[in-house]
Amino acid sequence: MQYTSLVTGGAGFIGSHVVTHLIQQNHKVIVLDDLSGGFKENVHPKAIFKEGAITDTQLVNALFEEYTFDYVYHLAAYAAEGLSHFIRKFNYQNNLIGSINLINASVNHAIKCFVFTSSIAVYGDQKLPLQEQQKPQPEDPYGIAKYAVEMDLENAHKLFGLNYITFRPHNVYGPNQNIGDKYRNVVGIFMNQILQNKSLTVFGDGNQSRAFTYIDDVAPYIAKAPAFAKAYNQTFNIGSDIPTTVNTLAQEIATAMKTEVHIEHLEQREEVVHAYSDHSKFSSIFNPSPETPLQEGILKMVDWVYSHGARESSTFENIEITKNLPESWKS
Amino acid sequence: MQYTSLVTGGAGFIGSHVVTHLIQQNHKVIVLDDLSGGFKENVHPKAIFKEGAITDTQLVNALFEEYTFDYVYHLAAYAAEGLSHFIRKFNYQNNLIGSINLINASVNHAIKCFVFTSSIAVYGDQKLPLQEQQKPQPEDPYGIAKYAVEMDLENAHKLFGLNYITFRPHNVYGPNQNIGDKYRNVVGIFMNQILQNKSLTVFGDGNQSRAFTYIDDVAPYIAKAPAFAKAYNQTFNIGSDIPTTVNTLAQEIATAMKTEVHIEHLEQREEVVHAYSDHSKFSSIFNPSPETPLQEGILKMVDWVYSHGARESSTFENIEITKNLPESWKS
Repeated sequence: MQYTSLVTGGAGFIGSHVVTHLIQQNHKVIVLDDLSGGFKENVHPKAIFKEGAITDTQLVNALFEEYTFDYVYHLAAYAAEGLSHFIRKFNYQNNLIGSINLINASVNHAIKCFVFTSSIAVYGDQKLPLQEQQKPQPEDPYGIAKYAVEMDLENAHKLFGLNYITFRPHNVYGPNQNIGDKYRNVVGIFMNQILQNKSLTVFGDGNQSRAFTYIDDVAPYIAKAPAFAKAYNQTFNIGSDIPTTVNTLAQEIATAMKTEVHIEHLEQREEVVHAYSDHSKFSSIFNPSPETPLQEGILKMVDWVYSHGARESSTFENIEITKNLPESWKS
Repeated sequence: MQYTSLVTGGAGFIGSHVVTHLIQQNHKVIVLDDLSGGFKENVHPKAIFKEGAITDTQLVNALFEEYTFDYVYHLAAYAAEGLSHFIRKFNYQNNLIGSINLINASVNHAIKCFVFTSSIAVYGDQKLPLQEQQKPQPEDPYGIAKYAVEMDLENAHKLFGLNYITFRPHNVYGPNQNIGDKYRNVVGIFMNQILQNKSLTVFGDGNQSRAFTYIDDVAPYIAKAPAFAKAYNQTFNIGSDIPTTVNTLAQEIATAMKTEVHIEHLEQREEVVHAYSDHSKFSSIFNPSPETPLQEGILKMVDWVYSHGARESSTFENIEITKNLPESWKS
């Protein structure tokens, strides 16, 4: 039997990898992506590509009429956590209202399972390592939007029987990432800066840490999640166990790209200083392969970056609040 | 000095009362209301009335350009908690995105204080009495939207210094209530049914309880809240301490309207069985007058209802999910 799956954000970074794994599992895949963050070249040639936004209710409903989806993999999002303070409406419109269109249609068409990528941004500043039983207390609009979707899914399951699996990945990097987005994904930002012979920009002292996670340690598990009955209606942290400071990351990337590190320290911004999470719940069900070491993952991404070249960074057009916006984001 | 205040939902039930108190306090009051739930006749003659929706970003921004608001009292909402399961997108669009438009404008124009009416719906099914230090775990889209706004306000305070005061009222009744709305406010629904010689419709056995709260025990405190410095950037339960079952309520209303009780029991719906909250935090700061006894409040509302007559109930047009929608809401 061939499953039919919708992948939102399938032209984006994580989404495009999930699509590849689904095609390998013989799914018929429909990609919905508005190319605001993704690229047409990322869409797998065997997937059916529909250009459009998840916020377009009519389009979403028409897609669910046209295809009988077994699974919905909802990866479309604008995951610029730091910028979300300044684009609050855009953030909730894209990350919450868009998700609700998909949840409504998934209930109305009785799909088998809704796989949702949330974020560790839902936790906020809490005791580390972050664990699923901790009650979320997000500290930015991006995390609030993701948490609202998580709660809505739980409610839709309770009232309508919609099955879901929620993943909370963190700091994923690898090929297909949009290295031209200056508002998110420090790994890609650093590589793009090195390609352009620029200094690496770091907010604050660079001692903040994140557990950077190679894409192959995330995407395959998201793709095959619906096969794990025990994962249904559960939420999982997913990603690397090992935190690295931004300074160390800069050093590792410079080494991989055979250059010296030049860091330009910018004013500290409002962000959680340290974040890493516990993955024992994930491991107990998905039995994952050992994680990709940082150096190895960086080398793989660097190979891809060299073959694709630097990307021009564009400035986000519709900033809603300019007060306290970091200087480097103004131009 | 005369303060200028924006009251969203100022043609609605609680909003219109808040406007009256603000006019008494000599505020210059601008009412923004789209009349989806409110009525033009509710708008105080001394208030400036702008017909329009909080979801209209341009209109909201234009209003903040036209007037220099000291305070924003944000009461506009579609507070149909039970229906919110079936109108998820509408719920988030109105109750969250609309609020974000107001928060953005309030930050950009540096108002003095943002007074927000949330709801005890944010708590979900928790240990009673509900207390502010309990972590919200809303169980319906209405509660999720309200909680998201609460979190967003906290964040906007932290990042931009926007002051807020959040109230979580519950089961408020009194004059100016839209007794024609069959989806919310059981007190008004019962009175409207008696006026039309209909049976009183009760979901389930009627033993579910709520602490019904007379409007005069809520609106004056919301109106004068910004004068209480200790209330800034705090959240307060507000309302009656005394829970009453829906069956008892039916009896009290029938008695006040000098008729016999005829209850039609409908199938139980998804709702919290008992809800009442602790108001010691509110009392410690606002030092309120003793609460209005239920019989007294009902008599006052009945007087108003008789002078205004029954209202035709309209059916909500754009139901998004019809699965599990209570039969009585279908026509």
